[in-house]
Amino acid sequence: MELNQRAHALVQPIIETPREIGAELVQLACGAKVLDLGVTAGRGGLEAGRQMAEICLAGLGEVSFSLGDAPGTRTFVNVCTDRPELACIASQYAGWQIKTENFFGMGSGPMRVKAAKEPVIQELGLTDDYPVAVGVLETSQLPGDEVCQKIAADCHVDPKKLVLLAARTASIAGHVQVVARSVETCLHKLHELKFDLSKIASGFGAAPLPPIAADDVVGIGRTNDAILYGGTVTLWVNETSERLSEFGEKLPSGTSSMYGQPFEKILRDAKFDFYQIDPLLFSPAEVCLVSLQDGKSTIFGQRNLEVLVKSFGQG
Amino acid sequence: MELNQRAHALVQPIIETPREIGAELVQLACGAKVLDLGVTAGRGGLEAGRQMAEICLAGLGEVSFSLGDAPGTRTFVNVCTDRPELACIASQYAGWQIKTENFFGMGSGPMRVKAAKEPVIQELGLTDDYPVAVGVLETSQLPGDEVCQKIAADCHVDPKKLVLLAARTASIAGHVQVVARSVETCLHKLHELKFDLSKIASGFGAAPLPPIAADDVVGIGRTNDAILYGGTVTLWVNETSERLSEFGEKLPSGTSSMYGQPFEKILRDAKFDFYQIDPLLFSPAEVCLVSLQDGKSTIFGQRNLEVLVKSFGQG
Amino acid sequence: MELNQRAHALVQPIIETPREIGAELVQLACGAKVLDLGVTAGRGGLEAGRQMAEICLAGLGEVSFSLGDAPGTRTFVNVCTDRPELACIASQYAGWQIKTENFFGMGSGPMRVKAAKEPVIQELGLTDDYPVAVGVLETSQLPGDEVCQKIAADCHVDPKKLVLLAARTASIAGHVQVVARSVETCLHKLHELKFDLSKIASGFGAAPLPPIAADDVVGIGRTNDAILYGGTVTLWVNETSERLSEFGEKLPSGTSSMYGQPFEKILRDAKFDFYQIDPLLFSPAEVCLVSLQDGKSTIFGQRNLEVLVKSFGQG
Repeated sequence: MELNQRAHALVQPIIETPREIGAELVQLACGAKVLDLGVTAGRGGLEAGRQMAEICLAGLGEVSFSLGDAPGTRTFVNVCTDRPELACIASQYAGWQIKTENFFGMGSGPMRVKAAKEPVIQELGLTDDYPVAVGVLETSQLPGDEVCQKIAADCHVDPKKLVLLAARTASIAGHVQVVARSVETCLHKLHELKFDLSKIASGFGAAPLPPIAADDVVGIGRTNDAILYGGTVTLWVNETSERLSEFGEKLPSGTSSMYGQPFEKILRDAKFDFYQIDPLLFSPAEVCLVSLQDGKSTIFGQRNLEVLVKSFGQG
Repeated sequence: MELNQRAHALVQPIIETPREIGAELVQLACGAKVLDLGVTAGRGGLEAGRQMAEICLAGLGEVSFSLGDAPGTRTFVNVCTDRPELACIASQYAGWQIKTENFFGMGSGPMRVKAAKEPVIQELGLTDDYPVAVGVLETSQLPGDEVCQKIAADCHVDPKKLVLLAARTASIAGHVQVVARSVETCLHKLHELKFDLSKIASGFGAAPLPPIAADDVVGIGRTNDAILYGGTVTLWVNETSERLSEFGEKLPSGTSSMYGQPFEKILRDAKFDFYQIDPLLFSPAEVCLVSLQDGKSTIFGQRNLEVLVKSFGQG
Repeated sequence: MELNQRAHALVQPIIETPREIGAELVQLACGAKVLDLGVTAGRGGLEAGRQMAEICLAGLGEVSFSLGDAPGTRTFVNVCTDRPELACIASQYAGWQIKTENFFGMGSGPMRVKAAKEPVIQELGLTDDYPVAVGVLETSQLPGDEVCQKIAADCHVDPKKLVLLAARTASIAGHVQVVARSVETCLHKLHELKFDLSKIASGFGAAPLPPIAADDVVGIGRTNDAILYGGTVTLWVNETSERLSEFGEKLPSGTSSMYGQPFEKILRDAKFDFYQIDPLLFSPAEVCLVSLQDGKSTIFGQRNLEVLVKSFGQG
């Protein structure tokens, strides 16, 4: 089944009764459907964020909440997948920057496969002929006709066949869907390290849900900190533990030269230029790599509560 | 969708195959259906309690079990909702005392909206025209025709359109459905403190499932202690953290003058007269308030294992 | 509903789209269906193991993953049931050794009720007239026609009506489905101690998912250690706490003379002859017994992280 088909099956019930999860359906003139889960009218919530995250994984992973202990929060966001490369890299990774004169948003979800603009997608060599494109936007504005027509054109679908779920970072759903990216972040860093992601059989990750920021920049800071300083990910990999150790030693966030400050400060020091930030910073605090070839597991890195206190507050 | 409609959709499968979750269906002469999940013949169980709790929340919250560590127990009951005022106050709060010469039970669930006897319900200004009334009873006796006809009349429905789920406190389902009230207890105390509950966007709570008491009074004691001394609740609120702090400082159970003893002792000292008990005692041990207006979270109170040991035993 | 009917309802979607959970369907000449969830071609995974475990419980229990802390792992496997004797003993217990000249596997699942070869099944006095037999095999080889015809004959069904799910120990699904046996192990030991299992109302258990071994013997060692040294089980029982204490004191694994070494070493010392191993070793590290007659709970035994470090590695 194609990724957009899987995501479409999950989004259809939201389109039918959007308010069940605090969504507002905006039907644009061009025919595109935008589900507001936390931009303007959409109130969103925990369940909206959970479903948004599962749609972003193209239905190939489960997202759940659990009780946990971290500074300023008692709620954790867990994610589990047996198709990590497809779920996290082909679909969930927020690799499509959608920018027009009047709009900015980070695009993720299976529509990225249709657009095939990113090298990471092109390398996967996937095709997706399903007639509907489904995407997720982290944005502080609802996309209008111009933006949706551009996205639809990039995805080679009629705008009538485009469904977007949108939430700003500074919303409950916005925070949940980012914090559900613990496994994705780990895979993406492994990709940066040139590891063959097709060897990764399964992933399980968890990270604290920060206090929901009222400001998008603070929210970007906290949701990244949740993973960088509070996240733990386990990957089960068809590779020897010896070879995994070579990657594992470079894998957790603590191996980056920029590690140690709350992400908001790092972002401000870089004057909001993401290209000035070490791409190897983006990884969970703790990574457990299980070799399916020799059965050895090794845990790299550890959580850093001090930075979480600075970022989330003492609670 | 009306609350009774939501609850009815969840209760219908139990009516069809009650024994799947250890329920016994009692069809009364007046036409009312009573599901015994732990009063006399009904054996109930964990899943019966879980479903009972979700029906009590009118389907607007999820209840789950998780592993946890507390004196005498390793099982926690979690609850999550994005409609806390409707789920917990309009529906779950056990605010309807149902009393006849021969019957006593605490009534909860969405039937309370139809009866509209309580000020807390009247203030919400809800109407519910769904033809079926669904309620939950914490009681040591199964209600008979007389009681059901009275409830049906109060709910303005034909007795044939009344469905009740009943469990005594001293049963597995009875304990689960009470311990699933962590968020509700917190909301109710906020209401006592005159906080506007409509500002609360979402809630997540957890409390230990005590050893199931064999005696209803001991059960009332332990299930209250689970929340008062072992419960933790997070609320996400559309209010400033400054204003939230004013409420938060009075919110956890530890702020009550009656705090510190197992609830059974407090109840016995009050000679079982609930009106002699400080209403502000009823609240979780720990409350995390997240301001959606300024993004600050503050944690008030903490768990008290010593009282849990007295109440639950060392295990 | 009969156990095989429940299991069949759960296995049917896997037969229809096996690859959704990484299964390969092998259709044998005799008509039997074999689902490979981790023997040769089947890649399996966490969800494959979870579903395999629920089918093995004949649909009478729920299996889930959660975040947890143990040497070399952060993933726990939880199991919850309100029909523990039926789910765990009549169905899940791997009590049927299936052996031909060329095949060896441990059989579990509801097919055991149809075969009725084991005293533990005969004692239950169950019948199961459902036309399909569903079984689970822990095996390093896929069963062929000869083995399936033998199993079908033993189950008194046509081979066309036999469905088997197979995974080797040294696979993700293989590990998950064994570690999901925490409650079963506890019940089986109680049976060995001559406790009347029909008195057990509900069970909840959890154990760490070990690093997946690449070798079946290491896998047998680790999955047993997960329960023996890392497992915790709560049982709610219709019996007095006094009488439960008599059993509880003999119940956790720590009461066995063979306790203290990783299971692989115990197995090797016994020269792989299971009959040389104390049957009373097989039990969770920690057991919480809740008396439904007098409401007292007692916790027996405790986790042993030192042995888990030896077995799983430091991580």
